[in-house]
Amino acid sequence: MDHQGRRTKIQSVLSQNRLDALLVSHLPNIHYLCGFTGSAGALLVTENNSWFFTDGRYTSQAHDEVKGSKVVIAQQPPLLAAAKWVTTNRKSLGRKGAWRLGIEGEHLSVAARSRLAGALPSGCQLRQAPQLVEQFRMVKDAEEMDCIRAAVRLGERLFDRALETIRPGVKEAEVAAEMEYAARHAGAKEMSFPTIIAAGKRSALPHGRASEARIPARGFVVCDFGVILTGYCSDMTRTVHVGRPAAEAQRVYQAVGRAQQAAIEAVRPGISVGEVDLAGRKLLQREGLARYFTHSTGHGVGLEIHEAPRIAVGQTEILHPGMVVTIEPGVYLPGRWGVRIEDMVVVTERGCAVLASTSKELMTL
Amino acid sequence: MDHQGRRTKIQSVLSQNRLDALLVSHLPNIHYLCGFTGSAGALLVTENNSWFFTDGRYTSQAHDEVKGSKVVIAQQPPLLAAAKWVTTNRKSLGRKGAWRLGIEGEHLSVAARSRLAGALPSGCQLRQAPQLVEQFRMVKDAEEMDCIRAAVRLGERLFDRALETIRPGVKEAEVAAEMEYAARHAGAKEMSFPTIIAAGKRSALPHGRASEARIPARGFVVCDFGVILTGYCSDMTRTVHVGRPAAEAQRVYQAVGRAQQAAIEAVRPGISVGEVDLAGRKLLQREGLARYFTHSTGHGVGLEIHEAPRIAVGQTEILHPGMVVTIEPGVYLPGRWGVRIEDMVVVTERGCAVLASTSKELMTL
Repeated sequence: MDHQGRRTKIQSVLSQNRLDALLVSHLPNIHYLCGFTGSAGALLVTENNSWFFTDGRYTSQAHDEVKGSKVVIAQQPPLLAAAKWVTTNRKSLGRKGAWRLGIEGEHLSVAARSRLAGALPSGCQLRQAPQLVEQFRMVKDAEEMDCIRAAVRLGERLFDRALETIRPGVKEAEVAAEMEYAARHAGAKEMSFPTIIAAGKRSALPHGRASEARIPARGFVVCDFGVILTGYCSDMTRTVHVGRPAAEAQRVYQAVGRAQQAAIEAVRPGISVGEVDLAGRKLLQREGLARYFTHSTGHGVGLEIHEAPRIAVGQTEILHPGMVVTIEPGVYLPGRWGVRIEDMVVVTERGCAVLASTSKELMTL
Repeated sequence: MDHQGRRTKIQSVLSQNRLDALLVSHLPNIHYLCGFTGSAGALLVTENNSWFFTDGRYTSQAHDEVKGSKVVIAQQPPLLAAAKWVTTNRKSLGRKGAWRLGIEGEHLSVAARSRLAGALPSGCQLRQAPQLVEQFRMVKDAEEMDCIRAAVRLGERLFDRALETIRPGVKEAEVAAEMEYAARHAGAKEMSFPTIIAAGKRSALPHGRASEARIPARGFVVCDFGVILTGYCSDMTRTVHVGRPAAEAQRVYQAVGRAQQAAIEAVRPGISVGEVDLAGRKLLQREGLARYFTHSTGHGVGLEIHEAPRIAVGQTEILHPGMVVTIEPGVYLPGRWGVRIEDMVVVTERGCAVLASTSKELMTL
């Protein structure tokens, strides 16, 4: 991965954001900018340089993973180590007058900010920076797309495993266990989020994590799952039916499918994410089902399972080629059952490409 | 679980902390106080009442899980829903003059705080509250101990699975896969953290997550793992040796074992966590190994895998009966190998009880 190029991009926008440096504390952003994958770190990026701070647990890992940024192993928490470093090196950092240090306001806690402010030298001002790294992360490069495609392919194979396992009487958690076992054996580091296997009445829960509940003789089973492979996440949902589906169940399933298709067809460079959301939602409105679509249409996927942009009502972010997002409308009839269909798509020059090829026909098991 | 009793405890300390209400945003704290286990919520606790805010994805789940707090399903993010609710109900909340709303500074981002402040009515002041919920959470009640003991027992069974799987040529990830599969089948919702299986040179990485690396013909394998069962975490580490250990390896293993024993023996009501840390560290000092013990001695465990107190150099928290902490010294020889031994202990009236019974003799596989 071109970590140096990514840091250069950040460096090139510092001054237009009226910052002398950015202190990156969000771990996926750190991973993106310097390659570090551990659980404690801070990255200080100035116009011409960068320093990575971590603690003694990560000495070897930091030296292995981080190239092109100087690695500082500290006794203190990484943010305080960065503050101490700034204090010591204030003079060599240039610029007379106030030195403006950007922080990631969405990811830094109020308390951590106070501690940081207390440890910085006078003449150093903290400023809440816009989400600079997240902006760049939205558009994936070729190497990232390779990782994402590989993660999606593995995700699809797990669905085959689910189909082999789902039958009346089996626990939802047993289905998840088989999928997760296969994921591990295929090299996934972990699942990208807690696997959702929600059967029967539980399919009406948009976030029905696989539980000890058993799959009933008849009803929907929502399967929403993903893996992390070489750092990148996959995310897909298929809803299958155990036993013969009633006419209403078929009707709702088809409506969700058409809503997903409509949203996918709306995805293209230049459109706002709010319009994409609306494209699918309108279709469910016509079927009288929009009030049962209780969540947003999708989200970006990459190093994080949920990242920018959020595809939701009223959101104004514009899509660009290389962005990877989910399209996942759902209909949930409270206390009865629910359906969700989800794919990841990559925005192309003219529209988008769906990354998975798994069928979306209603499958009856 | 006695959620009402827990909320009452928080309510009873509001006024002494000069707060009219506490806005709880940290999900494990919300789980602790009202039973909600979803991924989006906020709990507003005033002296006499409490309200739980979540979004449409969690309508059913919130009504099922949350008892004794009023549930508000909102269109907005939970924190903003809480702010809106305060705005609407400001008058009925009593107290003339400024109304002081406590926030969880360690868990609320700088940006979320700004959005919250912007949505609150004038006359409402945000104050960073001490970690009130975390303080109460440190001491576990009988029901919590039952959950923790069950999680620890399951964790121990997973280690048996590891012992059956570890042999030269097997991938670290395969060992983790077997353990995680067994955990799922035994009812664990998920692992409490990414399973660490670190073999050979990788055992020198304190956080060596199971990778695609293969177990060598000879060397240490650090196994650090845990499950979440009925909401509560387990955490244990055993280090085994594949092939015959060299004299130096045996010596270091014994030293880490003695350091762990010394720290465990130090655990009792009234002692500070810093003293517990020192008890084990001193022993490694005598062996000339303290510089290779690059992390803290342990941490609290409960609803979260890492919670208060932190058992580390200079920390002053005092132990009380019912606290559950890990004791996990380790020695890591960079580029060569490492050893860690970890148990969870519960502080008793006179000392502590180790929760797992798995042997700590050096096992050769």
